[in-house]
Amino acid sequence: MSDPVVPSATPAPLPTALRAPESRTAQLLLASRLPARMAWVDRDGRPQVAPMWFEWDGAELLLSTFAGSRKLDDLADGSQLAVTIDTSEFPYRSVKMSGPITVEPSDGLTDSYRRAARRYLGEQAGSAWCDALTGQVQVLIRLRPTRASVSDMSSMPFITEPTGDR
Amino acid sequence: MSDPVVPSATPAPLPTALRAPESRTAQLLLASRLPARMAWVDRDGRPQVAPMWFEWDGAELLLSTFAGSRKLDDLADGSQLAVTIDTSEFPYRSVKMSGPITVEPSDGLTDSYRRAARRYLGEQAGSAWCDALTGQVQVLIRLRPTRASVSDMSSMPFITEPTGDR
Repeated sequence: MSDPVVPSATPAPLPTALRAPESRTAQLLLASRLPARMAWVDRDGRPQVAPMWFEWDGAELLLSTFAGSRKLDDLADGSQLAVTIDTSEFPYRSVKMSGPITVEPSDGLTDSYRRAARRYLGEQAGSAWCDALTGQVQVLIRLRPTRASVSDMSSMPFITEPTGDR
Repeated sequence: MSDPVVPSATPAPLPTALRAPESRTAQLLLASRLPARMAWVDRDGRPQVAPMWFEWDGAELLLSTFAGSRKLDDLADGSQLAVTIDTSEFPYRSVKMSGPITVEPSDGLTDSYRRAARRYLGEQAGSAWCDALTGQVQVLIRLRPTRASVSDMSSMPFITEPTGDR
């Protein structure tokens, strides 16, 4: 295992929006193949944003990045991240979360990344993708959300009145 | 017109990735119905991210938000924004840009928002959407990119070798 479980002494409770049982909207988004769009603050105090594969383990959002990537110039234990996982088509659904991270080195691809690759690309293509990255070293980012919100526009009255042009 | 054109005295040249003629990838993304995922830094120095409808006018990214929205507690002329406009499915394509903004009040919905609503939802539904927002007041955010990059994974050799499981 390249992703050791680091138990937190007294884990803070999850924000209501992510507490089990999650809403159907949160469940769908967190199990989806949508990339997370991850925002952080760089060393000059400027915003940065990037799409990232993710994995939700029920308590933390796991994101893997390659050792030496520019993100890691900006991120360390305790850095704040904000993430949106949201659909690109109407009716828009989103889950947003933010909080502090921990950063864990690994000695190759992280197990979380290997699982994510299979989820996003399918079993065979995901494995082939990881095989093509043999020798690369990753870092695991664990985001423990302290704030979260869920939005689902499918409940808006607007779309129960189709106008016929879509 | 609720979006007055404010000429910039000496506009800086656009980053290469966005200079006309834009790459085919940049053109497709900037004309697409994909939401921009917009990142900024809040007043506590923490990252924030939200999906936003956008419009690209060839030099600036136009984003509209509602007067009184929490974003506007954090944003003012000169604030930095970072945006990614990227596809949710493999092969991933993205355009990222960042730079300073100007913030312009308007006296209702912005013209840019009305055009964006029709692009994202279609002519009829977009107009109906805006009609339902009659009386709301928006603010126009103009992002003038000083950095930009384009990525297109469809050129990766990986996907020319289908594995048959997608």
